[in-house]
Amino acid sequence: MRAAIVGSTGYGGVELIRLLQAHPYVDITSVISSSSAGAPIADGYPHLSEIRTDALDAVDVALMKEKADVVFLATPHGVAAKLVPQLLEAGLKVIDLSGDFRLRSAAEYEAWYKHAPADEAYLAKAVYGLCEVYGDRVHGADFISNPGCYPTATLLGLIPAVAAGWIDPATIIVDAKSGVSGAGRGVSLGVHYSEVNENLSAYKVNRHQHIPEIEQTLSDVAGSKIVTTFTTHLVPMTRGIMSTIYASVMGGAGARSEADFIALYRDYYKGRRFVRIRPQGKLPATKEVWGSNYCDIGLAVDARTGRVTIVSVIDNLVKGAAGQAIQNLNLMMGWDETTGLQFVPAYP
Amino acid sequence: MRAAIVGSTGYGGVELIRLLQAHPYVDITSVISSSSAGAPIADGYPHLSEIRTDALDAVDVALMKEKADVVFLATPHGVAAKLVPQLLEAGLKVIDLSGDFRLRSAAEYEAWYKHAPADEAYLAKAVYGLCEVYGDRVHGADFISNPGCYPTATLLGLIPAVAAGWIDPATIIVDAKSGVSGAGRGVSLGVHYSEVNENLSAYKVNRHQHIPEIEQTLSDVAGSKIVTTFTTHLVPMTRGIMSTIYASVMGGAGARSEADFIALYRDYYKGRRFVRIRPQGKLPATKEVWGSNYCDIGLAVDARTGRVTIVSVIDNLVKGAAGQAIQNLNLMMGWDETTGLQFVPAYP
Amino acid sequence: MRAAIVGSTGYGGVELIRLLQAHPYVDITSVISSSSAGAPIADGYPHLSEIRTDALDAVDVALMKEKADVVFLATPHGVAAKLVPQLLEAGLKVIDLSGDFRLRSAAEYEAWYKHAPADEAYLAKAVYGLCEVYGDRVHGADFISNPGCYPTATLLGLIPAVAAGWIDPATIIVDAKSGVSGAGRGVSLGVHYSEVNENLSAYKVNRHQHIPEIEQTLSDVAGSKIVTTFTTHLVPMTRGIMSTIYASVMGGAGARSEADFIALYRDYYKGRRFVRIRPQGKLPATKEVWGSNYCDIGLAVDARTGRVTIVSVIDNLVKGAAGQAIQNLNLMMGWDETTGLQFVPAYP
Amino acid sequence: MRAAIVGSTGYGGVELIRLLQAHPYVDITSVISSSSAGAPIADGYPHLSEIRTDALDAVDVALMKEKADVVFLATPHGVAAKLVPQLLEAGLKVIDLSGDFRLRSAAEYEAWYKHAPADEAYLAKAVYGLCEVYGDRVHGADFISNPGCYPTATLLGLIPAVAAGWIDPATIIVDAKSGVSGAGRGVSLGVHYSEVNENLSAYKVNRHQHIPEIEQTLSDVAGSKIVTTFTTHLVPMTRGIMSTIYASVMGGAGARSEADFIALYRDYYKGRRFVRIRPQGKLPATKEVWGSNYCDIGLAVDARTGRVTIVSVIDNLVKGAAGQAIQNLNLMMGWDETTGLQFVPAYP
Repeated sequence: MRAAIVGSTGYGGVELIRLLQAHPYVDITSVISSSSAGAPIADGYPHLSEIRTDALDAVDVALMKEKADVVFLATPHGVAAKLVPQLLEAGLKVIDLSGDFRLRSAAEYEAWYKHAPADEAYLAKAVYGLCEVYGDRVHGADFISNPGCYPTATLLGLIPAVAAGWIDPATIIVDAKSGVSGAGRGVSLGVHYSEVNENLSAYKVNRHQHIPEIEQTLSDVAGSKIVTTFTTHLVPMTRGIMSTIYASVMGGAGARSEADFIALYRDYYKGRRFVRIRPQGKLPATKEVWGSNYCDIGLAVDARTGRVTIVSVIDNLVKGAAGQAIQNLNLMMGWDETTGLQFVPAYP
Repeated sequence: MRAAIVGSTGYGGVELIRLLQAHPYVDITSVISSSSAGAPIADGYPHLSEIRTDALDAVDVALMKEKADVVFLATPHGVAAKLVPQLLEAGLKVIDLSGDFRLRSAAEYEAWYKHAPADEAYLAKAVYGLCEVYGDRVHGADFISNPGCYPTATLLGLIPAVAAGWIDPATIIVDAKSGVSGAGRGVSLGVHYSEVNENLSAYKVNRHQHIPEIEQTLSDVAGSKIVTTFTTHLVPMTRGIMSTIYASVMGGAGARSEADFIALYRDYYKGRRFVRIRPQGKLPATKEVWGSNYCDIGLAVDARTGRVTIVSVIDNLVKGAAGQAIQNLNLMMGWDETTGLQFVPAYP
Repeated sequence: MRAAIVGSTGYGGVELIRLLQAHPYVDITSVISSSSAGAPIADGYPHLSEIRTDALDAVDVALMKEKADVVFLATPHGVAAKLVPQLLEAGLKVIDLSGDFRLRSAAEYEAWYKHAPADEAYLAKAVYGLCEVYGDRVHGADFISNPGCYPTATLLGLIPAVAAGWIDPATIIVDAKSGVSGAGRGVSLGVHYSEVNENLSAYKVNRHQHIPEIEQTLSDVAGSKIVTTFTTHLVPMTRGIMSTIYASVMGGAGARSEADFIALYRDYYKGRRFVRIRPQGKLPATKEVWGSNYCDIGLAVDARTGRVTIVSVIDNLVKGAAGQAIQNLNLMMGWDETTGLQFVPAYP
Repeated sequence: MRAAIVGSTGYGGVELIRLLQAHPYVDITSVISSSSAGAPIADGYPHLSEIRTDALDAVDVALMKEKADVVFLATPHGVAAKLVPQLLEAGLKVIDLSGDFRLRSAAEYEAWYKHAPADEAYLAKAVYGLCEVYGDRVHGADFISNPGCYPTATLLGLIPAVAAGWIDPATIIVDAKSGVSGAGRGVSLGVHYSEVNENLSAYKVNRHQHIPEIEQTLSDVAGSKIVTTFTTHLVPMTRGIMSTIYASVMGGAGARSEADFIALYRDYYKGRRFVRIRPQGKLPATKEVWGSNYCDIGLAVDARTGRVTIVSVIDNLVKGAAGQAIQNLNLMMGWDETTGLQFVPAYP
């Protein structure tokens, strides 16, 4: 299968290249960049020297149609909204890693993204590709909206408990933390090494655009509108997301033990290789999934407070972006979802 | 005033040295270590070369009585429990940076610390030195129990709202994060650079010994028993603690605005130089207090969820240990509480 | 082919597991540890959860003979010296990642390693597996001594120039820098996060045990005894080695241009996929090879001083340990040397 | 004494504020910025909240004359060249932290800085403020050119040996490493956290503008033209410079022992509090001077190669910039050079 990557000079795009190079059924036939078209990609990314020697293509739908069967969009907000209709029209399969097609409501997109939304007709066509939950819908689809990094870690950590009705949805609080690569390669004071190193900060409190994405899916799962408190922090590391999630156990801590929760989660994710539930008394750390497509989850129930604490970790560039995008491609095509993605996390 | 420091080879002890070297009224007359007595302190801490050329004294109460007026204890759990009675007996003033005298209940100490508690008679003598809250009790006292690092950040962030009855105490959730120096200088896999760097982990969930310390003071302030969810995370940085605190606003978000909360906090801490309340829309980062005795606090109210989010940051070795200990000494002696502590945070 | 890994709980061993899991012709049939035999490897390395579920075997030659065809030794100094004779006797192929068989002279080993050397008969059997230089000797061999991390970066950076006689061997100075994982997983103050983070230090100056290894090979290549200045530094990062190498150009800077040197190196490494020579004006950074088996080299000639500066980078755990070991296995077996090793560096 | 700081929003400027706040004889009366005039400085630097509440002044010589006695220039290349003549004309004392007046030769400045040089008449007026070497010239001077960060570490590490004729000047090689703050607060891909973290790179090889500054002073000291190889590396840390310096010992290693070198250096810096020479067998690490004005130096002589290795470390923002500038002010005014600068390094 021939793949084109739009936005190849961003961190999401370059991670797609890293992963797809190892995929047995996919050839990258076009690496595309609006800003650096014509230049060899190794100019900006010397780690790709002698691995990718081709020059970057410009953003050109006709060329993509000629060169590729599937297009990955790893582009800033607003680009996919414009490109997707043309690509689908051209008969290409599309996997969009941006946020443009994640919210079903154009109004909500505009409210949170402060940006013009995509055409509603196309919003309706997008399949939200949270693989372990909506894999059936992805199978055979032509157009996938790949989930955000925070939503992936958070939703995989919450859905089994919400679906089972074991936690009170009104009490959900998500304290999320991310490495810096989530902010992309663009330069700003906020990603300046001297400002981020040996520092920890909270940002976009109550205003992060991933909030409606999380709430939309949780509400679907619960069958009623769920509102959550969701806070994001910038941690001095490059990769990794941890969502530490708090909620009150329905019926109190006596109703469901830690072992019950672990069994529930293992059952929910049975057969899904990329979600690993830690045994009782153990919680995952971000480095334990570094560079891989795993989402690792641990759970602790506190008898004193009646709350469950759920810790869910991913590599934001893999399971939170490029890895899940390829997992979606595998599911679209009917291949085993782990094809080309069985990287062991790089530790230490 | 002559000061002795027991535990001079730990991070808390060596930070006391850094800060006291700049104090106009205090001379360090004895640096004490049980493990390295006889050796020059600069052997283990070359940054003190030519600054402190004296050799480490052994732990010897008679010698302390001879050399010092006040003794700082920066020792592991259990040491102060034994030493404090002898030191007080000898007529020395004591500031204990360990956890041995923070909990009034010996039983609770034993339950959380898994260690034999101090004598109850001496537990009753200890004044809990959270300076901005209990400064009046510290004034003229002879024996101070210096608060823990997490409790300092968390309590300073919570007390004005709890005291005012503006938040529902049953809903308090504290997601705390710390740099690695909080674990001390002892070696273990948990502080190995290759394990901690580019990693984020949660630890001691629902089991941290600072939980009863936080609840004891919050309950005092509220006038009723408060139980909290408190989670600690290890962040790949050396210094800094952030407590991100969540609670439901009494009467809902409509009852109290962000501006109300900020005004409440500014009023509560009026005249206290070491607590700085950020203006609306701003939250503090740990590096903004690095190396200093400040506790910086920011607040955000979310109309959607009816919750307030409070971000409180300190340098765990300064306001969370050595700095607050010296602030306590200043208050004990009736000096201005900022004496010798007016360091500008080191940024970047 | 069935492989056993002795020392599976060290960083070298666990990196062998990561890489061999992706090798098409090799099955790991025994993970071995003297300290943790009987325990599942994921107990100490949760990133391997559900990837390796087998328990660690004890160190037992008969068992290795039964279970494996090739044994990788990723053990501390002195262990391989004792094990290798038994393993070879048992008819197993052996790749030793320790320093026990790198020096031909037992006396020199003892002088630098401060340790009893291996039996000289077995020292003579070892093939020094610097793949790009001695690949021919590796082909068909049964027993490989895998080069050290610093020697790999340094020798690959120096050999083309030394072999060509383009630099004055008496002037070689190597300023080497390493991430912390090179020190292994053992705990000590020297690898404590709070001591290493935001810090840079030099260590073992003029005393590093890799000095005789570098000099032995350079002397072989030059045909005369070469003595070098070699300094090692500890850098606050987990992975990566950079050797910055200085030498006077024979005949002065006028004799050989930067372009000449680059052409020389490209020619020397023609057809060797894992050495990449940067174009003129570009020097490699350690992150450009992170997680991969590449050694990237850049060269600069200074007309003012008549010196060439050579920058050579590797991932110390891959090309400097586990990756080159597998490359050696590939060469031993007559497989393409890149088999199972074509990882794209993880960037960022 | 009233001080104005031009360039208060850069890292050098903000470090001057941190240090001068603790100076007993100096008041900061004007913080000046061309880019942010009118705004409170704490807007861009929240760590200064409630410490500096004044607004930034514009760059206005008349205003400086009115408000200040001494002006510190912490500005980009080219600004001081224009401002200094006006400031001196106005009768102000000036300490310039930029490179504009460090080279006596306007032609050399232009060749290395690629920038128009300052007026030669004013170049001739500048006293090069390397305090421990040229303190006598600084005393009573009105206009100081503060040395660069790399030259400070390198020159203090080399001058005693060069002055004594103990090393061969033709063999000097300096392998220098710096934290990221040396690049300033401006944003670029080169200081992006995700690019710098877990990475090590060499830059400006043979082209760094500090090369002629180092050679100018070394040549003065030696009495003959000295040319050096000088390489700079970017290390993933915020503060700290290490120069690892190599040179052949005159007469060979037998001529001068390690103890001889240490004695020579201790003698040269006798009475100078800010240079600390490590005892034999010890080398300094950058963190041992973090946040302080110390330059720590260690020396190792290698009998095998006949070379001495000198390791010299500073905090680039203190001894390499703001701290030495204040030390220069102290010397200009006839105050003790340590006034207001006796900070203990912050460790860990």
